[in-house]
Amino acid sequence: MSLADTSEKTIGRLSTYRRLLYRSDLASQASVYSHQIAALSRATADQVRRDLMAVGYSGSPNKGYKVNELVQSIGEFLDNPAGENVCLVGIGNLGRAILSYFSGRRPKLAIVAAFDVAVSKVNRAIHGCRCYPLDDLAAVAERENIHVGIITVPADAAQSVAEKLVEAGVRGILNFAPVCLRVPPGVYTADFDMTTALEKVAYFARKMGRN
Amino acid sequence: MSLADTSEKTIGRLSTYRRLLYRSDLASQASVYSHQIAALSRATADQVRRDLMAVGYSGSPNKGYKVNELVQSIGEFLDNPAGENVCLVGIGNLGRAILSYFSGRRPKLAIVAAFDVAVSKVNRAIHGCRCYPLDDLAAVAERENIHVGIITVPADAAQSVAEKLVEAGVRGILNFAPVCLRVPPGVYTADFDMTTALEKVAYFARKMGRN
Repeated sequence: MSLADTSEKTIGRLSTYRRLLYRSDLASQASVYSHQIAALSRATADQVRRDLMAVGYSGSPNKGYKVNELVQSIGEFLDNPAGENVCLVGIGNLGRAILSYFSGRRPKLAIVAAFDVAVSKVNRAIHGCRCYPLDDLAAVAERENIHVGIITVPADAAQSVAEKLVEAGVRGILNFAPVCLRVPPGVYTADFDMTTALEKVAYFARKMGRN
Repeated sequence: MSLADTSEKTIGRLSTYRRLLYRSDLASQASVYSHQIAALSRATADQVRRDLMAVGYSGSPNKGYKVNELVQSIGEFLDNPAGENVCLVGIGNLGRAILSYFSGRRPKLAIVAAFDVAVSKVNRAIHGCRCYPLDDLAAVAERENIHVGIITVPADAAQSVAEKLVEAGVRGILNFAPVCLRVPPGVYTADFDMTTALEKVAYFARKMGRN
């Protein structure tokens, strides 16, 4: 399946289904029906079946899917079999919270290095992750085979950090800084702007109240 | 403009434009063209013009928009004129990072109360935000006129916290817990799942590398 065939939304849903199979009441079942997955996610049963066909899982929707086989199929589709090493740049409050969040959570998707320009924040481990000076980015990224980066620096430093990440071989960036990054073709970025997220919720909350 | 007319994407873009007018190089200009806003966001100049017409700004695209008037128009459209008080439930690493992030940032969109079940985390201020026992949610939400909530509790507590928020009069929830919340009609929710966000970036980064 090519990049064009698999939308961001499909990937997001597959990630959600797997999480449900790991962590919800479904995790204790031997087999599961598409409508059960749908009821716990924001998808319809039809959509669940289509998505699971797309990952090549060959179970029968009528008899239910075997949970352990389904988890494995989704993993084979989503995950790099060799595991994916991730770095984070910007060891502030949000950066530290993210290091804590991912600490030990996903063996195949691990934050293995964090960087900062502040000397006081580096040359130690935070939530099990080693912290380095930003100047070491290229060398550490090569040594640790890092191709995914998380940006948690302030807005005015984000573009320059993104360029350093791309130079260091990173091909996917999850950006929490409130700027739209400019990156060359062949690099995937996803932005999460906390203020915009909260402004949207506040806007629609207010409209709900009026209607 | 009704809720149906204004999509989530439009609201997200308007929030982004305003941020650019506050914080980018555009902030120092007296007037700005749609193509300048487009160049710093992920929108086209056409889209920028359409969005700004939607908020009712009457400036002329040909002569450029006056920056201060545009900021005001977007604010009149997006913001509650009385300001919007927000609460956060779950004073862990992520909750604290979010309190720090919003501290003093938006006078019209302020986190005025944080809640936790752990006695050790409450009855104090964190980044200027007062922290209360979760049992006080309804009373504090009414007193502080809170209609927007942020959930940063673990997955297994999120649904019960969402129900308490709705009972307390909250109509919009920004949810960081990795579950899909079930809320009654009239309540708006937005989910941000850190793991799914990172899994998506890793997936597309890998596909980029192959192509």
